[in-house]
Amino acid sequence: MDVLALLDVNALASGLSSLSMFPYFDTAHYVVSVMALREQPGALEVSQRSPLACWFSSMLYCFGGAVLSGIIMAEAPVAPLANSTNVLLATLMWYLVFYCPLDAVYCCATMLPVRLVLTGMKEVTRTWKVLGGVTQASRKYKDGVFVMIAVGWAKGAGGGLMSNFEQLVRGIWKPETNELLKMSYPTKVTLLGALLFSLQQCGYLPLQTAQLVLLYTAFIVTNKVRMMLMGSSSSPFAPIESAFHKLLFARPLTSPTQPRSPARPRLADPAHVSEAAGKGASGTSNGSPLPSASEAAKDHRGSESSKKTN
Amino acid sequence: MDVLALLDVNALASGLSSLSMFPYFDTAHYVVSVMALREQPGALEVSQRSPLACWFSSMLYCFGGAVLSGIIMAEAPVAPLANSTNVLLATLMWYLVFYCPLDAVYCCATMLPVRLVLTGMKEVTRTWKVLGGVTQASRKYKDGVFVMIAVGWAKGAGGGLMSNFEQLVRGIWKPETNELLKMSYPTKVTLLGALLFSLQQCGYLPLQTAQLVLLYTAFIVTNKVRMMLMGSSSSPFAPIESAFHKLLFARPLTSPTQPRSPARPRLADPAHVSEAAGKGASGTSNGSPLPSASEAAKDHRGSESSKKTN
Amino acid sequence: MDVLALLDVNALASGLSSLSMFPYFDTAHYVVSVMALREQPGALEVSQRSPLACWFSSMLYCFGGAVLSGIIMAEAPVAPLANSTNVLLATLMWYLVFYCPLDAVYCCATMLPVRLVLTGMKEVTRTWKVLGGVTQASRKYKDGVFVMIAVGWAKGAGGGLMSNFEQLVRGIWKPETNELLKMSYPTKVTLLGALLFSLQQCGYLPLQTAQLVLLYTAFIVTNKVRMMLMGSSSSPFAPIESAFHKLLFARPLTSPTQPRSPARPRLADPAHVSEAAGKGASGTSNGSPLPSASEAAKDHRGSESSKKTN
Repeated sequence: MDVLALLDVNALASGLSSLSMFPYFDTAHYVVSVMALREQPGALEVSQRSPLACWFSSMLYCFGGAVLSGIIMAEAPVAPLANSTNVLLATLMWYLVFYCPLDAVYCCATMLPVRLVLTGMKEVTRTWKVLGGVTQASRKYKDGVFVMIAVGWAKGAGGGLMSNFEQLVRGIWKPETNELLKMSYPTKVTLLGALLFSLQQCGYLPLQTAQLVLLYTAFIVTNKVRMMLMGSSSSPFAPIESAFHKLLFARPLTSPTQPRSPARPRLADPAHVSEAAGKGASGTSNGSPLPSASEAAKDHRGSESSKKTN
Repeated sequence: MDVLALLDVNALASGLSSLSMFPYFDTAHYVVSVMALREQPGALEVSQRSPLACWFSSMLYCFGGAVLSGIIMAEAPVAPLANSTNVLLATLMWYLVFYCPLDAVYCCATMLPVRLVLTGMKEVTRTWKVLGGVTQASRKYKDGVFVMIAVGWAKGAGGGLMSNFEQLVRGIWKPETNELLKMSYPTKVTLLGALLFSLQQCGYLPLQTAQLVLLYTAFIVTNKVRMMLMGSSSSPFAPIESAFHKLLFARPLTSPTQPRSPARPRLADPAHVSEAAGKGASGTSNGSPLPSASEAAKDHRGSESSKKTN
Repeated sequence: MDVLALLDVNALASGLSSLSMFPYFDTAHYVVSVMALREQPGALEVSQRSPLACWFSSMLYCFGGAVLSGIIMAEAPVAPLANSTNVLLATLMWYLVFYCPLDAVYCCATMLPVRLVLTGMKEVTRTWKVLGGVTQASRKYKDGVFVMIAVGWAKGAGGGLMSNFEQLVRGIWKPETNELLKMSYPTKVTLLGALLFSLQQCGYLPLQTAQLVLLYTAFIVTNKVRMMLMGSSSSPFAPIESAFHKLLFARPLTSPTQPRSPARPRLADPAHVSEAAGKGASGTSNGSPLPSASEAAKDHRGSESSKKTN
């Protein structure tokens, strides 16, 4: 019976691997992507002021992964436009979501059951895109595991990684944040996928491609559906990330000095005492390991000498 | 006699098609492009602070189309520099327009008759650039009509489409506007040209290339000269655009609710009434079709849920 | 004896040319580059908030030249990641500089003798990068001296030239300045190197490659060490630049009108007089050659008409 279950899983995996994304899954991807754009602040106003900018933004949401992976692999970023059928399909979805009479399409698609199904199908396309990017990179750079991760990530999460420049198309510029400084859940889960598929491609994982496709797809779909149903935006990776961060990226000197902090004011000059107190208080309130006062003083010296150290 | 006229037109068309752009038309293009840069606010100050940034900006004005079409086709954006003769010619024009003793060249070129001739000649180069872009794309992507339009447009109006990044070279950053959000006349007319030449290339237009070159060139030159003589900046496409916009891109629900608007406050809750009133007032003052109150409420809900819909 | 000295120099030159950059010089380059990043304002905070953005920024500091020259030559910007050994080495240096327990590595490396040696070794890698860029361009564009200069410059000073976008990764955006508007010393000396190596490649310099490598390396290393020891940030090119600037890029009309300035108010209308006075005062206070009043008036007219001159 165990063998039978294994056979079933393998049959399911190979069946999933031979699934065609066109047209149903692609359509779901386009609808969900364009809806995500429409729900950005100011997007509806742009759709009125300039349908062309709105269309271009939508295409970046739909084909951003192909554009970004094209740029970093020196392949034509305009290539997605060569697939006329997909462009026309995405354009039709863009038109229906933004300009459909009575707003019928958007109203239907925002109903929870419909949205759940569409989002689940969109997540399935993510697996295909990540795998496509990893394969594309491995053809050009054999054994280049970092390139595979980068291209797989770019292809799967291109729209998010390019969001600063996508916003610029709509006249919005938010330089203070980007997907590297503060990763969203889709970007994180795509990075994980790119990592897994790259390791599998290089033979470091005891799994076949079809099995990994099944596992990863099941994980992202169930996880996304769970997050939508529970309305939580908390990432399932948060505890792992936090432990990892504390272990590897704690500010040097910060943790050793914390226990000794009562002894430090006596040694430091008054200016530093008040600074350290302020730092300590703010450090407690937001919980992040801030640089200590001596660090801050060192940084200041550093930035003064930075002109001659490039 | 009708046949003779046709012969004449065809002879004229083929004569125009075999016209060489180098050196006279190219020179006119460089002079007019560099003058357009010089007339940007702050450009003269940059020409004093950093001649190199000014030169780089000028080259983007002169060769922006080749740079942008190179980027989107994955061909080297540095390639225009390989044509040393043209770079030296453009550099000479840049020097003469910005730094000529007594400012003689700029003063001459701003005289209306001279400017008319130079601008007319510059417009002729536009046809060649659009056609070049469409042909370049069709060699790589047969039947890829969207790619042809994009590359033709990028090659013909590259400087304008890249203007945000060209301004950045000069230390200016205006994210709130770009050529997609608010197209200028040259960008529009180049898009029209890219569309026509792409359709012709794919065999959808009953015209030969030489004939379309003649027609399009005649249209853009006469139209530009007319606009300069009448000092009007109004586009000849405005009525068509407006009709097109009303027909296709009217906000759904907005037009049906306008006649019913007196009846709506009674149905809506007080918060919505005041919001609708505010919207209505602002909508009247700037004349743009703003989303109605129910739309705005929906958008707000949408933007709150946007985090979980990517 | 003269012949012997010449032999020695040639032996030294060919010995230097066959020097391998990996691993010692590359390591020094990575350490100094990551330290330069760490000494940027706000970089330490980013290293706490997002190690990934910090790592990406560090890689742009370490491999910026390869990325930028890849972009402008239409070669994959992701290619530096394919050299896994160098990426792992740079990543290790990034980790040690930012997160080493007790901050031991950074503290050691900031000691003047250590920093002097590391910076000297980093400067040696600059020669190799510039020469690599020029050779790379000359393979694709024979006789394209402008392309060689551009690619050599991009490869040697890529991190600096891309600094606006590198800062964007860390959430910082300073559009009002860039390396073209205000070149730093490393960018300038790299441009000089790209110029020399390109001229040598095209046969315009009576030197062999190995000799030029020796000369240029000796110049940049001694100059950098001198600047660090004397704590001066003044460029050795300042007098030449200033003379060059006055000779070639003086605003036309500005110098001739300065002696005549007392006579001008009588000719000008009152509005211009007050404007000229204001300009004159500010011109005196910051010492830059500002456009004169008639120029400013012309500029204003120009910017009004700029919409119809593109």
